Parts: sequence; C-alpha cells; structure tokens
Amino acid sequence: MLFHVKMDVAVPRDLDPDERARLVGTEKERALELQRAGTWVHLWRIVGQYSNISIFDVDSTDELHEILWSLPLFPFMRVQVTPLAQHPSALAAQP
Amino acid sequence: MLFHVKMDVAVPRDLDPDERARLVGTEKERALELQRAGTWVHLWRIVGQYSNISIFDVDSTDELHEILWSLPLFPFMRVQVTPLAQHPSALAAQP
Amino acid sequence: MLFHVKMDVAVPRDLDPDERARLVGTEKERALELQRAGTWVHLWRIVGQYSNISIFDVDSTDELHEILWSLPLFPFMRVQVTPLAQHPSALAAQP
Amino acid sequence: MLFHVKMDVAVPRDLDPDERARLVGTEKERALELQRAGTWVHLWRIVGQYSNISIFDVDSTDELHEILWSLPLFPFMRVQVTPLAQHPSALAAQP
Amino acid sequence: MLFHVKMDVAVPRDLDPDERARLVGTEKERALELQRAGTWVHLWRIVGQYSNISIFDVDSTDELHEILWSLPLFPFMRVQVTPLAQHPSALAAQP
Amino acid sequence: MLFHVKMDVAVPRDLDPDERARLVGTEKERALELQRAGTWVHLWRIVGQYSNISIFDVDSTDELHEILWSLPLFPFMRVQVTPLAQHPSALAAQP
Amino acid sequence: MLFHVKMDVAVPRDLDPDERARLVGTEKERALELQRAGTWVHLWRIVGQYSNISIFDVDSTDELHEILWSLPLFPFMRVQVTPLAQHPSALAAQP
Amino acid sequence: MLFHVKMDVAVPRDLDPDERARLVGTEKERALELQRAGTWVHLWRIVGQYSNISIFDVDSTDELHEILWSLPLFPFMRVQVTPLAQHPSALAAQP
Amino acid sequence: MLFHVKMDVAVPRDLDPDERARLVGTEKERALELQRAGTWVHLWRIVGQYSNISIFDVDSTDELHEILWSLPLFPFMRVQVTPLAQHPSALAAQP
Amino acid sequence: MLFHVKMDVAVPRDLDPDERARLVGTEKERALELQRAGTWVHLWRIVGQYSNISIFDVDSTDELHEILWSLPLFPFMRVQVTPLAQHPSALAAQP
Repeated sequence: MLFHVKMDVAVPRDLDPDERARLVGTEKERALELQRAGTWVHLWRIVGQYSNISIFDVDSTDELHEILWSLPLFPFMRVQVTPLAQHPSALAAQP
Repeated sequence: MLFHVKMDVAVPRDLDPDERARLVGTEKERALELQRAGTWVHLWRIVGQYSNISIFDVDSTDELHEILWSLPLFPFMRVQVTPLAQHPSALAAQP
Repeated sequence: MLFHVKMDVAVPRDLDPDERARLVGTEKERALELQRAGTWVHLWRIVGQYSNISIFDVDSTDELHEILWSLPLFPFMRVQVTPLAQHPSALAAQP
Repeated sequence: MLFHVKMDVAVPRDLDPDERARLVGTEKERALELQRAGTWVHLWRIVGQYSNISIFDVDSTDELHEILWSLPLFPFMRVQVTPLAQHPSALAAQP
Repeated sequence: MLFHVKMDVAVPRDLDPDERARLVGTEKERALELQRAGTWVHLWRIVGQYSNISIFDVDSTDELHEILWSLPLFPFMRVQVTPLAQHPSALAAQP
Repeated sequence: MLFHVKMDVAVPRDLDPDERARLVGTEKERALELQRAGTWVHLWRIVGQYSNISIFDVDSTDELHEILWSLPLFPFMRVQVTPLAQHPSALAAQP
Repeated sequence: MLFHVKMDVAVPRDLDPDERARLVGTEKERALELQRAGTWVHLWRIVGQYSNISIFDVDSTDELHEILWSLPLFPFMRVQVTPLAQHPSALAAQP
Repeated sequence: MLFHVKMDVAVPRDLDPDERARLVGTEKERALELQRAGTWVHLWRIVGQYSNISIFDVDSTDELHEILWSLPLFPFMRVQVTPLAQHPSALAAQP
Repeated sequence: MLFHVKMDVAVPRDLDPDERARLVGTEKERALELQRAGTWVHLWRIVGQYSNISIFDVDSTDELHEILWSLPLFPFMRVQVTPLAQHPSALAAQP
Repeated sequence: MLFHVKMDVAVPRDLDPDERARLVGTEKERALELQRAGTWVHLWRIVGQYSNISIFDVDSTDELHEILWSLPLFPFMRVQVTPLAQHPSALAAQP
C-alpha cells in the first residue's frame, strides 16, 4: 500500500554541529536500510529546497507513522502524507 | 531528468458524453504509450480525488511541456510541476 | 485501518430535481449500507455546511478510493483524506 | 453535543527535559481520564505529524473550552474546533 | 450557548427576479422571527460585502445546524461557525 | 459606530512571570473599564484558543486605534478589524 | 474618517453589451460625483488588473456601506475595506 | 524600468472557435511586435500551464497598464505585476 | 509614478530599548523628510496593527527600492509593493 | 534549459557581523562567477524586499540543485523553482 510523503527539513542553526552531523548520518543510514527493505520505495530531492518527496510501501498506517515518527530528523521536519491508490491507466493496472 | 507532476482533473458536466468517453479513452492510451516508452515513469491516483501524482523522465523542460500540453484532458486539468534531483541518501546515489 | 475523510458537497443548481433526489437517496442508502458493514465507522455533519466529517475503516487505500469514487454524489464532492494511526494516549492503546 | 478538535503540538526544543516528560505524562493521564469519563470520545494520531484529531462530547462550549485550556500541553498547541451535528444519513439518525 | 456565524451570500445572477425577491423577503422574516425569539442575538452587515456577522444563542449544535440549513438563502451562502465561550474579562464573568 | 475585532494573543514563553501576571491583570482592568464605558460592547473567548472576538462602539477609527494600540497585551497580539454597518434585517433597523 | 477600499471587478462575459456600457458609464459618473463631493478621496488603478485601490472619507461605516452597496458595478465586485487612522509620522500629525 | 509579469490564461470553453483563433492570433502578433520594440523583453512558458512569465521594460506604470489592458486575451487573463530593481550582484551593476 | 506600499513592522522584543528608540526616531525623521520632498505622498496607519499603507511618487523602481531598503526599520519590516496607474474615472483623468 | 528561481533571504539578526559580511561577499562573488559563465542568466531585485528573481540556464535539474544548495546564503533562503519552456510567441520561437 503506497503513500506519498513530503518532508521539509529545518534543522535549527544553534544545534550542536556534532549532534547535527550525527543526526544527518543516522537519518541517512535509516533511509538506506528502509530502501533496502523495500519500504521506502522512492526518495527524491526537491530542487532548491531542503525537502524530499518519498514513496513508502507499508502494510498499515500505524506502520507508516511509526517509521516517520522515529526518523532521527523527525523533530525538525514538517511531514505531509497523501494516500495513493492504483491508477486505472497505470501499466500495472492493465490486464 | 525527473519531474514530479500533480494533475487535478475537472471535466465539465455539460461535456458531450461521447466526447468525454473519447477523451478519457485517448488519455489512457497516451498514458500507456508514454509509460511503455519510459517517459511517464510512475502514475498514481490520489485517494478520494480525480487527481494523479506522476513522475516523468524527460530530456528537457520543452519536452515535458509538449507532453503535458498535448494530453487529451489537458484543457480540463490543473497541473503543477516540481523539478526533482537525486537525493544523497537514495540507494542510487551510493557509491 | 482508519482514515479521516472530509466531504464538501456542491450539487449544481441546474441539476434535474428528480436526478438530484435520486442521487441524494442512493447516496443515503449507500452510506447506511457501508455503516452497517462497519466500513463507514462515523458520519457527522459540520454545523452550517453541506459537508460531513467521516471515519472509514478499510483494509487498503485501494478499497477506500473505490468506495469514495463510486459514491453517487462523488462528482459533486471535494474530498480530503487524512490517514490516522493509533494514538499512544488512546484508551485502546493502553496495555 | 459533539465537537471535532484538531490539536497540533509543538513543544519548544529548549524546554527542560524533565518538565517535558512531566507535561507529556500528565497530558496522557488527563486524556485517559477524560476518555474514561466519556468526554473525550475519540483520539487519533495524524500519520506523520505531532497532531491529533479528537471528538469531544460536552454539554456546553464553556465546558469544552475549560477542558482544552487546562490541558497540560495547551500552551504548546494550536487548536481548531469544529461543531458537529447529527448527519441525516447516520445510522443513529434512522427511525 | 453562543456561536459566531459569518454568512457570505452569492445569489446567482440568473435566478428569477421574483424568486429572488421572495427568498430575500422570507429570509428577512425568518431573521426577524429568530431575533425576536432571542435565538439570533446579533446581526451585523460587513461594510462593502454581501455578508453578515451574527451571534446565535442555541441549546445545541443540532439546533444551530437546523436553523442555518433551513434559511431561505442557505443554498447561496458560505457559512462559517465559531463556537464561543465566556471570556474571563467579560463583565458578565465578574463575581 | 461598530467594529468587529479579533485578537489572537501569544505571550512569549520567556516573559518574566511577574511581568506576565501584571500585563494580564492590567489588560483585564482595562477591558472591564472599557466595557463599563460602553466602548467595548462585547467580549467573547473563541473555544480552544487564546483569542477573543470583540465588538467596539467608537466615534472614529482614530479612537479605535488608540484603544487597541494601548492595550497592555497589544505587543503580543495579532489584531484584525472589520467595520460593521447596520443590517437591513436587524431588529434595530425596523421602522 | 478614512477607509482604504480595494475593488476587484469581474463583469460576466454574457452581460448584454448595452447593459454593460450603461453600468460602466453610470459607475464612472457616480465615481466622479463622489470625488467632487470629497467623499471618494483617491482612486487608482492597479497595474494589469481590473481593480482599483481607493480612499474614502466618510462620517460613518453606515455611510460607507451605503455608498459601496449602491455602486452600479457592486454586484460584480469583490470589495475589501480596511479602516485607517492617522499615522504619528504623517505630516498632518505634526504639531 | 523592468517589471515581472505573470499571466495565467483561461479562455472559456464556449468561446466561438473562430473568435478564439482570432484572439490567439492577434495576441501573438502583438507579443511579437512588443518584443521587436524592446518593450516585452522576455516571454517564457511555465511548464505544464497555460501561463507565461514575462519581463517588460517600460517608461512608466501607466504605459505598462495600457499595454496589458489592451492585450487581446486580457479579458481571460489573471495578471500579477512585480516591480524589479537592479540587483547589486548583477553583472550590469558592477563598476 | 505612484506605488502603493504596505509595511508591516515587527521590532524584536529583545532589541536594546535605546536602539529601538533611535530607530523609531530616525524612521520618523526620514518619513517626514520624504513627505516634505513630495516622494512619500501618503502615510496612513492600519487600525489595530503596527502597519502602514503608503503611496510613493518616484521616477523609477530603482529609486523606490533604494528608499525602502534604506529605511531605518526596514530590517524589521515586511514590505509589499503594488504599482498604480491612473484610473480612467479619476478626476485627474478627465479632460 | 531555463528555470525561474525566486529567492527570499532572511539572515538571522544574531549572526556574527563578520560572518554575515563574509557570506554576503562570497554570495556576490559566486553570483558574478555564475553570471559570467552564462549559468545565472538574469538576476533582479524585487522592489522593497530582500528577495531576487533569477533565471538559470542549466543542463539538468541535478546541476541546478547543486548550484542553489551550495550558495553561501542558501541556509538563510527560501527558494522556489519554476521550470520554463519556450513560449510559442517568443521571438526565438519564430521560424
């Protein structure tokens, strides 16, 4: 089940640089892990912004919330979730 | 080069039903053709709306505009285009 | 899996009165049927508006889209869907 | 009498961690107490956000305001209240 | 129990003039009747707009919805309802 | 001459508690004084918000600005003013 | 007493051309008359829009509403009114 | 003196096709004429929209308004004008 | 050439009081000087807000930007500029 | 391939003045370098704002993102990117 997620990141200027580096690093590790697991299906940067557009494939809304809520940079993100359905004109929907 | 495209469709109520059926049909054919060609990479329905979220892979902004402008339902669409870049945490960006 | 759905209805003035009555009637039948099936869990009117706030319990986003898209009044609705998760302070989440 | 309430929480980063833990804890206790009393009828998390959607059943607007205003996390919340009425297609409205 | 209601009116240009006059007339009669009954407590025009700001005193949200929904001009109104509570600095709140 | 005023208050967290108490206290005194003088005609709390909706009766826009600008909590308020006129369906407008 | 008024005009395409010419003509006459009377103090066109920004000098909000409401093009206008006060740095405010 | 102008075009569906063709044709002629005159300095299409972003070089705001107002498609446009100044980091601003 | 300018001022709470007084004082001096020069043609306070609406008469957009950018309070302002043209119904436009 | 970019700058008040001067200086150097390279094709100031409107000519969205992301003032900017295509009425599009 797919969800479209937009994340806007705003790390506070006064965050300790080491803490910041640690958060960005663990965020990246987590993103790679979830991509390898097939959960974080797509991850794109929006040009000119500290934002991404992502597609998640999860079994439930609880699972998706748990994933997003526990992202290392979550406290500094604005997150918008849009549920997706199969489009009747998508290749995958053709008989 | 990837672009994120959101299309909201509003076909007028008073459109001739045959014309409507013809437009929806040719729109679907065109969507399938562009998907098979690898240009319309993803096509998802937004749950509860006559809208889709799509990813296009094109060589230029002119090519993308030409594709969107010539969609059969284009006169009845509101289209928003967001340019995408590779995300440093995407699997494809790893060495 | 729960989804919060807001529906704003705007039936065109020039719709044939019989057609309007038929649509409103079948919409109500469908709403009752889905409530009895446990899919349309809650249905409230927003005071002063031809709008409702609803909670749906579905197995997938595809199922939810299918339900909304096939509502008799769907062509005259603006629909916004918000995915819900269990709240850690909800009674149901307590051990 | 039902009211739809959306609460967006933004606890300041520099709040003392003990104070934060105390506030979150008493907020949860208060939420459970009001749910057990039948006042806070529903409490859901919005996926990907530090926000909830709630339904309150109160006797008056004064009672609702008193409840919301005295929530431990109220100073860090943005609250939007929408009054609800019985929907004519709701099961409970059928004769 | 008080509610703040803003009504924006947009009567369609092509409404039959007699029907329009009849609706405006019965709307006025209804407004006067509800004011005399103490339900429609205040009714002000917003300068430069076909809009009003009103205060209603009702026993329930169902009662308020019933009143608004049955106003003769309701089909041509956009209505926004804001629940009010006693303000601690209001004269009426002083011991 | 009546004006509709909405005030949203946001007192900074780091304001000295004594200063805060002093400001809230003098704000209340001033509100009561203006109500007794017949200038601040109505004062209601918006449910769930640190906001009020007020009606002022003044002789001029200069008088209204002077009153608002000199409120003790003004530096922490967002204020929106809407000029009102007599509504032709108001009881007071009837011959 | 000064008020800032923004008027956006949208005359329907299907208005009878003679009626349109008549309305635009009487609107202009009325505007000139009110300017000569010192009531409509300033009248500017917003570049690139069928809109104007105006300053009115009136004795009351009722007077202003009456003027705006009776403008020949009022049914095709969106009007926004902002009350003005003397600015302490204005030349006219200097002793 | 440069101005940034965004034009969104929405030609009504029921416009006579010949009239539409005539308007689009004369609009193009006028655009070319103004470009050749050095007044309409830049003209770009926004990808996926019936909109353009333009830069005009004019001697006065009256001149700009006259140009925009008399465009053949003006009645079907939404126009937003932003005045520009020389940027201190622009090449042309370097000594 | 006239421009409509709206300035919203938000001086930070923690600005040194002497610095604040100095800035407000020099801002006023500059405003008076520009009014006497005929450049800052009108300056009004918006009722209930730390904002003004102004009309400037300048020879170029560069001149206007230079004036606004160098206002003592500019770093604490949000500024919106709207270019104005002569209105065909203005007294000054009559032959 | 052209992109329209709007940058709004908000340098924090408490940034060290030397650091600020260094950032503004290197930003200008970078802007000049990219203009000389033909990448940053146009750079205009929006009148009355610490904002610019720019046109970039790049080979890919990745290149554009890299340029914007590495601007010295990027951490203090809000950036909006709009992809452009050739307009059929542009001089350059004529045969």
